[in-house]
Parts: sequence; C-alpha cells; structure tokens
Amino acid sequence: MAARMVVVSRTAEANNALAAALRGTGVDVIELQGPVHALLLDDDTALAERCGAAGDVVIHRKAPAWPLASNLLRPARTVKIGTGAHSVDVGGTSWIVIAGPCAVETPEQTARITDAVVAGGAHALRGGAFKPRTSPYSFQGLGRAGLELLAQARTKTGRPVVTEVVSPADVDAVANSADCLQVGARNMQNFALLKAVGETRVPVLLKRGFGTTVDELLGSAEHIMAAGNDQVILCERGIRTFEVSTRFTLDVAAIAWLKQRSNLPVIVDPSHAAGDPKMVAPLTLAGLAAGADGIIVEVHDAPHEAKSDGHQALGVDGFTALLASMKAMAPAFGRTLERP
Amino acid sequence: MAARMVVVSRTAEANNALAAALRGTGVDVIELQGPVHALLLDDDTALAERCGAAGDVVIHRKAPAWPLASNLLRPARTVKIGTGAHSVDVGGTSWIVIAGPCAVETPEQTARITDAVVAGGAHALRGGAFKPRTSPYSFQGLGRAGLELLAQARTKTGRPVVTEVVSPADVDAVANSADCLQVGARNMQNFALLKAVGETRVPVLLKRGFGTTVDELLGSAEHIMAAGNDQVILCERGIRTFEVSTRFTLDVAAIAWLKQRSNLPVIVDPSHAAGDPKMVAPLTLAGLAAGADGIIVEVHDAPHEAKSDGHQALGVDGFTALLASMKAMAPAFGRTLERP
Amino acid sequence: MAARMVVVSRTAEANNALAAALRGTGVDVIELQGPVHALLLDDDTALAERCGAAGDVVIHRKAPAWPLASNLLRPARTVKIGTGAHSVDVGGTSWIVIAGPCAVETPEQTARITDAVVAGGAHALRGGAFKPRTSPYSFQGLGRAGLELLAQARTKTGRPVVTEVVSPADVDAVANSADCLQVGARNMQNFALLKAVGETRVPVLLKRGFGTTVDELLGSAEHIMAAGNDQVILCERGIRTFEVSTRFTLDVAAIAWLKQRSNLPVIVDPSHAAGDPKMVAPLTLAGLAAGADGIIVEVHDAPHEAKSDGHQALGVDGFTALLASMKAMAPAFGRTLERP
Amino acid sequence: MAARMVVVSRTAEANNALAAALRGTGVDVIELQGPVHALLLDDDTALAERCGAAGDVVIHRKAPAWPLASNLLRPARTVKIGTGAHSVDVGGTSWIVIAGPCAVETPEQTARITDAVVAGGAHALRGGAFKPRTSPYSFQGLGRAGLELLAQARTKTGRPVVTEVVSPADVDAVANSADCLQVGARNMQNFALLKAVGETRVPVLLKRGFGTTVDELLGSAEHIMAAGNDQVILCERGIRTFEVSTRFTLDVAAIAWLKQRSNLPVIVDPSHAAGDPKMVAPLTLAGLAAGADGIIVEVHDAPHEAKSDGHQALGVDGFTALLASMKAMAPAFGRTLERP
Repeated sequence: MAARMVVVSRTAEANNALAAALRGTGVDVIELQGPVHALLLDDDTALAERCGAAGDVVIHRKAPAWPLASNLLRPARTVKIGTGAHSVDVGGTSWIVIAGPCAVETPEQTARITDAVVAGGAHALRGGAFKPRTSPYSFQGLGRAGLELLAQARTKTGRPVVTEVVSPADVDAVANSADCLQVGARNMQNFALLKAVGETRVPVLLKRGFGTTVDELLGSAEHIMAAGNDQVILCERGIRTFEVSTRFTLDVAAIAWLKQRSNLPVIVDPSHAAGDPKMVAPLTLAGLAAGADGIIVEVHDAPHEAKSDGHQALGVDGFTALLASMKAMAPAFGRTLERP
Repeated sequence: MAARMVVVSRTAEANNALAAALRGTGVDVIELQGPVHALLLDDDTALAERCGAAGDVVIHRKAPAWPLASNLLRPARTVKIGTGAHSVDVGGTSWIVIAGPCAVETPEQTARITDAVVAGGAHALRGGAFKPRTSPYSFQGLGRAGLELLAQARTKTGRPVVTEVVSPADVDAVANSADCLQVGARNMQNFALLKAVGETRVPVLLKRGFGTTVDELLGSAEHIMAAGNDQVILCERGIRTFEVSTRFTLDVAAIAWLKQRSNLPVIVDPSHAAGDPKMVAPLTLAGLAAGADGIIVEVHDAPHEAKSDGHQALGVDGFTALLASMKAMAPAFGRTLERP
Repeated sequence: MAARMVVVSRTAEANNALAAALRGTGVDVIELQGPVHALLLDDDTALAERCGAAGDVVIHRKAPAWPLASNLLRPARTVKIGTGAHSVDVGGTSWIVIAGPCAVETPEQTARITDAVVAGGAHALRGGAFKPRTSPYSFQGLGRAGLELLAQARTKTGRPVVTEVVSPADVDAVANSADCLQVGARNMQNFALLKAVGETRVPVLLKRGFGTTVDELLGSAEHIMAAGNDQVILCERGIRTFEVSTRFTLDVAAIAWLKQRSNLPVIVDPSHAAGDPKMVAPLTLAGLAAGADGIIVEVHDAPHEAKSDGHQALGVDGFTALLASMKAMAPAFGRTLERP
Repeated sequence: MAARMVVVSRTAEANNALAAALRGTGVDVIELQGPVHALLLDDDTALAERCGAAGDVVIHRKAPAWPLASNLLRPARTVKIGTGAHSVDVGGTSWIVIAGPCAVETPEQTARITDAVVAGGAHALRGGAFKPRTSPYSFQGLGRAGLELLAQARTKTGRPVVTEVVSPADVDAVANSADCLQVGARNMQNFALLKAVGETRVPVLLKRGFGTTVDELLGSAEHIMAAGNDQVILCERGIRTFEVSTRFTLDVAAIAWLKQRSNLPVIVDPSHAAGDPKMVAPLTLAGLAAGADGIIVEVHDAPHEAKSDGHQALGVDGFTALLASMKAMAPAFGRTLERP
C-alpha cells in the first residue's frame, strides 16, 4: 500500500484554511470521520508545504494508509464486548479469555462446553454457527439454529458471545444473537462483508488471513472503520509458510508490530495456528508475551467426537491448566486475569 | 482435505442395491448431482467392501474431496462463454485470450482499450466494475455504472465480457451485463459468494487465492458445482512467497497439476503475478507451455494514467507482440489462436 | 524424511540375538553410537516382528530419522559451554543469555561491548569473526584477527565465547579461540561443515536455516551427532515467509515442537528474526514463553556505526531492560537468570 | 542488499583522474576485476558528482550489488562446458540438455543410463558422486569412487560431465573428473565453497537455494566471479512455499528476471522442483518458454530401484518424448536442439 500523507487540523480556523488551500487543486483528498478532523492525501512535498501554510495543522508524511486504525491520531484503546455485569473490555490491563467449541452442534454439547469454560474462567464464549469449510460436503454449521443455541448459552451464563458471520445477508441475524461479529481468516478481504459489519455498531473480531500481511490486516480494519464502526479487535491466528510441522505458523511478531502501530486491541488464536492441542499452551503464552491482549481458544469436552477441528481443541483440563499458567505469568506483564 | 471414497453405480439396479446396502449404517453419505450417480463417503475398507457387494459399481478409494471437479467421473471438457457468433469455448484446442483494462473508468477509455484489444486479436473482454482494494480510500471501481460500460463494449464489439463480482447481492446485476462472473483471488474462499454464483447458470472464472493451495482451489470449484453450476473455469494468478522480485510467484506447476486431475479448463493471469509489464510475455508463454487453455491479461493504452494497477498493464503494442509469440508457439502444442 | 524404525536392545543377549536375526536379510541397518545400542531401519511390519522375536528389545515404529537427537532414546539434557567458574549449562532451569556485537571490529569496540553486556548480566559472549555476507563487497569479518579479539574478551571477562565458523578448514582455529562453534543459518545444510564440527568435542550452536523445516534442523543435528559430537544446541532465528514487516518470521512453534521431540537445548535469536531493535524484546519474551532455554542477542553501543547488522542491534540500555523483563517473567516458568 | 553505485572509466586518463578524485575520501571503493575498469561504491549524490568530474566515466546509480554478474557492464554471453568436439556453449541459440541419474551407483547403472541419455539426445551428462542428504543415514553417494565412474562415462561417450561438489577440500578432485562444478541449492550461500570454486577456472553450475531470492543468487554468483572465475551458469530449481502439491514451487519468473538483468546463462531443473515424473515435461517446457537456456534433468532406467530421488526421475521413454516436445517448440523461440 502506497504511503499517504495525513494532515490534521487542530482548530476550526485551520480546518477552513486547509479546505480553502486545497480547493481546486484536484488532488485526491479523502476526509476522514475520525476523532479529529483529518485529510488523507498522496504523499508529496509540494502538497505538504501548501497544507503547512494553513495554520495550526499537524502533517504526518509517509503515514500508513490506515489512519483510523493507526495510533498516529488516536492512542491505544479498549473495545467493550457485551453489556452489563459480564461485559469485557478488550485491550486494557486484563488478558481476556474467549473460549468454547469450534462449532455448536447440539444443545447438550453447547451447554456442557460453555458451562465448563465459564467454570474454568473464560470471560466470553465462542462457537461457530456458520462454518466456512474447504469442502461443500463437510459440516457447515447449524446456521440460524446454531445462533439460537448461542443465544441460550449467553442467557444462561451471562457471558458475551463471539461468533462468525460469513455473509452480508446474515449480519443482522448474527448481531441479534451475539455480542461480537467474527470475520474469519478466509473473509479478511471480503470487502462486501467488511462494509456490512462496518455499518453495524457491534464489535468486530477481525482475523488475519493466512495469506495476508499485517499491513493488509490494518487495511481491512480501516474498511470497517471507514464504514462507521470503530469497535474492531484484531486477531493473529497463524500464516501459511513452508513449515509443515504446525498447521499454520503463528506470527508473534505481527502481534508486537500491530500493538506498536495501531490503536486497536490484538488477541491471539493459538488453536488454528497449532492444529494440535499440545501446542496450544506454548503458543498462547508466546502470543501474550509478545503483547496480545487476550486469547480465543477452542475447547471441547470430547474432542474426537467434534464435527470440525476436534483434532486441535484443548480438553477442559488443558484449558484449566492453561489459565493457571496465564495467571502465573500475568503480573510480570502488568496484567491480570480478573474480569476486565 | 481428508481423502474420500467415491462410489459410482453404473446401473439403476446397482444404485438401488447400493442405497439398500448403506441404509442404516449411519455413515456420512453425500449424494452428488453429477453426470453419473455417485456417493461420497469417508474412505474405509469395510465400507468399500460393503459397497462393492452392491453389484455394478466402481469404487475410487483415496479419491479427492472434489468429485464433481475431478476427472475421475467426467473427462476434461470445455466451458462456453457468450452466445452466438463470438462465443468462445474455453478448454478446447484454441488458446483463448481475454483482455482489457484492469478497471473500466470512462466510456472513452473503455471503448479505446476494448477496440484495441479486439483489433489485436482478443476473443473476449475483461474489465473491472467492482474492484476489491486493500484500502477503502483507493478507487473501488464504478460499480453498476461500470457494468453499463461493459455492456456497451459487449454490444459494440460483439465479444463476450468477463467481470468480477464481489458480493452475493450483485450477482444478478453482474450476470445481466456480463457473460462470465469472475470470483477474485481474495474471495476464493468466500463461500457465500461461491454459493451465489453456483446458483446461476452463468460461467464462472474462479481465481486461485494467493494464499491457498490447488487442492483448496478445487474445493472452491466444488462449492460452485455442488450448488448446481458446472460452468467453471480455473485461473492461476500467482501465490505469495518470500520472493519479492515479482509481485506474486506464478505457480506454473499448479496449471499442470490441475489439468492432470480436473475436468475443468485452466487459464493463466500473468498480469497480477508479474506486477511488471516486462514480465507479462515470459509468464504468459510459460503458463501456456505448462498446459493453460488461455490467458486473461490487463492491457492499457496509457498505463501511467490508470486508476488501478497501471504499473502492471501491457501496452497495446506489447499485447500485439504477445499474441504473435503465442501464434508462433501454438502449433507445437497442438493449439491455435483461431476463435475457439 | 521417511519414517524409520528404531530398535533398542536392552541387554547384550538381546543385542546378539538381534544381530543374528537380521544377518543376511539385506535390510538397511544402521548401528548407532548412542547411549544405548540401537539400530535404525526402514519401517516395516515384517521387520518389526523379526526384531521383536529377538528378546529384550524396544521397537519404535514411525520413529523420526534422527534417533540421536530425539527424546525417544535419551531424555532432555543440558550442554555445557566453557569451563570453570563461568561455564554455563544450557537447557537447565536457567535461561542463559549470550550477548555481544554482530561482528568484532576493533579491540576497543569489542572490549566496550563485551564489558557492557557482562555488566548487564550476560552469561556468555557472542561476536562474529567470520561473517557470511550476501555480497562479496560487504565486510566479511576480521577472520583470524577477530578470533584473537574474542580470545582476549574471554580472558578478560572469564565468560565463554560463541562464534561462527564457516569453513571446515577453520574449525580447529575457531575451536581454539572459542567455547562454542556456531553454524549459521546459511550453512545449516553444509554437510561438510557439520561433519567437521561433529568431529570435534566442542559444543555446537546450530542455527535453523531460514528456508528449512524443523525436521531438517534435527536431521542436521543428527549429522553432527552421528559424527561423534553430542554437544549440540539448537537455535530458532526466523524463517522466510511472504510477510515483510519483519526481516524474518520468528517461528515460536518450532521452539515448542523441538522441545517436545528432541533431547537438545533450544535457544532463540530475536535479533535476526526482527531486524529491528523495537521488536527484540517482544520476540525474546515470546520465544522464552514458548519454551526456549535462552537467547543469543546482538548488542551494540553505537548501532549506527556498526559495520554489519547495526540496524537490528539492541542498545546497552535496551539490553538491560530486556534482562529485567526476563527476570520478572522467569519464576512463572520455573526458571531463573542466575548463572546456570 | 543495499543499492550501489557503479562507476566505469572508459579511458586510462579517466581512470587516473577517478583514482585521484577518490583518494583520501575514505569511501568504500572496490576495484573490480571485470572486463572494464569499474568501481563499486555506496550510492550517494555527492560521490556521484565527484566521480562525474573525473572525465570520461559512466555512472550507474542504484546499481545492483553484483556488477560482474549484471548486464550493465557486460552483455549476455555463453559459458562453454567441456572441450573438443562435444563441448557445449550454454546461453547461445541452442537449448542444452544435461541428463543422467540423480546419483551414480554402480558402473553398470552409470553406463546404462548415460548411454541411454546420449542416444536420446543429451548434450552433457549429470550424476552425483557427493550427495548432500538431510539424514546422515541416507546414501551419501559413492564419493571419489563415483567421480571415477563419471570420468569413465565421459571417456566413453565424449560428453562433458556436470557433478556436484560439496566441500572446498574436494574441489580439485571434482575439477579433475568433471567439466562443470555444480554448487547445490543447500550450498548456495556456503561462501567458503563459492570462493573455492571461484579460484578454479572450471565452469560452475550454481543452483538457487530453495529459501533464497534471485537477488541473493546473483550475490552468490558475484562471490564466484569476484574470486576470479566468470564461467558461471545459473539454475532455477524451485523454492519453498506453502503449496504442497509439488515438492518445490518452480519460479519461472525468476528465469525471466535473471535473463533480463544478468549476463549469465540460466537453466532450469524441473526434476527437483516437481518431485514427480508426470510434472517434469510441463515444468521443462514452462521454464524454456520463460527464457531458460537449457535443462538439467534426472533420468533413470529403473526409477524404483534408485538409491536417491528415484521417485522424481524421468524414465528413458519420457526423456525421449520430452526432447521431441522441446524440438517442436524450439523454432518459435529462435532456438534449436542442435549441439551448441
């Protein structure tokens, strides 16, 4: 993505002067709906001088092409999932834990696992109703019936629910049953879907595509934010490389890089990266040590019976042990596992 | 994708016996809507024996999970784009050439370039009305107004038009203005979109995602075909690797691999792989030598003024020279550039 | 690497019986010089039965092709670097810290930096005398004169020295001046060099190649061990991927994977992976959280004047802060930063 | 690799003036042993002006860091392998064919296969005596005994022999038995070996490492050339990517890129890229269409009995058919298969 120039006017006067200065230049000016008045232009020295003459403005040259997502104009912040007593603020001093099955399958399975992860210390629930699957003959999730099961789990446990949405047409239904809309890795550059979730005011968990860069991840976050929704949480879940010992290669540097440049919270998904329950704990701890604000992890009480991804889910005991490790490690990072 | 077992019954009797043999077994049987009656099961020796006892059946063990796309059940075939005198059959003895601008921008630009490529020998036209862009601030295409320009180009030149669709909601509109629906690399695993184009009867040009395997590409083709549309053309356009000298790495082996295993035509997109006009000719010829059935190439008559991807478009002269090279090379491959 | 079968005879009698049983079979038997008598054969059921009949033997089927490096035959262990009061055991409860400049350049620079890192808490020193460089016109290191500077630093500080060797012809000279022979990423599959360092009894720090798998890394360790030297320390330093935001992608899963399968210590090199001092701390902590036994890190007191890799070296203050972070984190992992 | 500035003085006077102008500046001047007097400096505007004042000089700014390998100072050229009636010029109008077994195993196997490939039209012979293998327990080649078999094949057929050298200590022995020293992919950045082959006057076939860029490949060629040997042939043999359908991903764009920037011949190795005989023909033809000057291909008359890489070798019939395809295709590229 080409470098941009971001010009911020700090007073109404400067703003007017800036508008006047650029009128008729024909340059490609993009006015942002951010917390401050800002313009996004192609980076150019002559333009920078013209803007500088407008008065009380700050000019960021070679700025990234995602000003709303960057920490140039806005400091790091939290995103709240859910409402009421069990809502969680992602991005603060608490490491948040989102846990549950890969897919919701039956009322009993959903209730058993969500009860178990809440007992184990999860702050929020995950579970797929719409599952993007490589093969059309694999289990695609229960769809709207699955949303109903998630809504029941939310009512019963009080915990907020995160679930994936795969089509613009389903956004409203998912937003009604869940507290956070997950955009999966395969849809990270499905711009129609990004626009649709951007037009809601529901928090979005945006997973990095396994073939896309961190710069592109922030470009996708910018699509959501430019559509009006600034409640975005980023998620690193592993990228495709030549190494075949793990399902994907967890890019922990991505977590640190995003935290250093963006104002958005970042969490880690160790389950999809690992593809192996024995790897979930080390990848979780590594992701947190690199700066992640929390985790989203697959837990199953009978992994071998799962209809999808059972091979990578952590058992309930493994989940409890993982949270104990996180708790031991948290103080060294100025973090806690208390409800955020 | 796990191996599957594909069982084909060759007579109505065998079909009935097969149904009876599997009744009540609880195995995951998927009945396909293919040219022959076929069932897709998990691969298992006991199951294979049970099916074999049903009479006149053929059992393919360790079969790929994309039976409709594979050449196990159906030989290689052609897909027709357009109707009437200028329709083209992709996958036959002719190398087909689809050419045009990256994006349609104005009536004049569209007419100039489409006239030039038709004069140069293109069989079909390309041009983007909906452009998936990494940044929300980049030119996103003219949208429905762009479709109108493409429809005009089609009327004027008589040539079929290929254009991208990025949202299920736009499928009908695009299908009305174009002869072939392109699903772009970033949407290769946008399963809601695959289902939507699968529910039309319009040919689909499915581009490989830059982070996805050839096995997954055929999985995506299978999604379209399982939804009822078997008019699918595959397209290799380069994958992401560590090598930075080209924008993507064109995987010519993918072309050969797909031709050896699938019944679908395969074309090559040298423009996106190269990201550099000087590389378009060698990548085109390499892709054809590896077995491709044609090309889709970006041409611009004023590359430096293009609103997107101008840096990689071939000039008109370059396009003409490329077709001359293809023509010289075709006989050695039993091919021609005559209208297919 | 194909699966192998490892057969361990636990008594002299079983050993003789095994030898007799396999005589004349023509199978490819490899007798290992390990802590137990073991044979490495192609995996095969008939062979396994024949071996099992030999008495008190243990048979590992689908064993990895690196029995000496695996933890099948030998539990995890430590490797000692240096002798006397300042020797360090890598792989025990202490996280070891190896620090110093990328290259030794002058007596003053070497003394300044090595004094600073020892004052900051380093257990061992690093510094390159032989530098593999992409261009023949870049600084290639001081060569044997550099070894002399390292030997002086060792004498002055008492700390063990780790330095790279790039040619079989230099192995003896390097072994005389240093306590640990580093085989760099570009030489991980330079089998002539692996054999040469395997014929010494000096510890070897074996870096993973940036284009090689963890399975191949253990294959290279096995080359060293099969030549007679079992003092091998593994090092993860990042692999090549499509992501360009960091110089390489640190594969923390590799660390966990190696610790779960090998008997060898594993350390992490955050400097080369990051290529950016701001990323060194998060990558170090992530690597340790994933299970690493220590770090090797580049420190420079005037990074911008360094003749190689200055852009990625940590300043002395950054180094001190990093060790404070490690110290805070160590107890949660049952580790310490005390001299091991 | 950082950009460089290459300054060429075209007269002795300019040369003297240049030397005087740079005296005492302390800049990093590297005098090249090339066909013209040239200096390699860090790219810098002030320096460029100072050099320009020296008279009849040509200044290439932002030049690549491999001036000897580039086509800035020297046009594309041929490299001769062998002497006498059967010598071949690589890089001219003929596509050269180097063929033979992966490894030489026995006198009979060597004679059978080399006779067969010569009968089939090979211009030169390949065969490994020293085999770099991932596992120390795999067949490592016959070593010096293998060289003897190659020398016999050369005598019998008259054809030049290409074989791999893996250690500086073996360079002289290999140079005595063969006509071209192959540096394998795993040793592409084994700089001690590059220097050793650079000190001979024997042609070197330099294979690209599977984890290295084309820029680095030319850096390695420059190491050989800076040591005094300009008889270098480059070879693309596939890189590591996430795609697992082929053993490596053949990067045909690399071939075109190298031909556009270097003065060195480039050949393609389809066998290692493919790892599958069915893929050898399409990859060969694709590599040639992209601009390669020839091929190096593994042929075996009993692939399943080969001690290494038998799974990827072409049978004799396949080899004959491949040469027929090449012959059909050659005229379209202005090439021939006649002895070059």
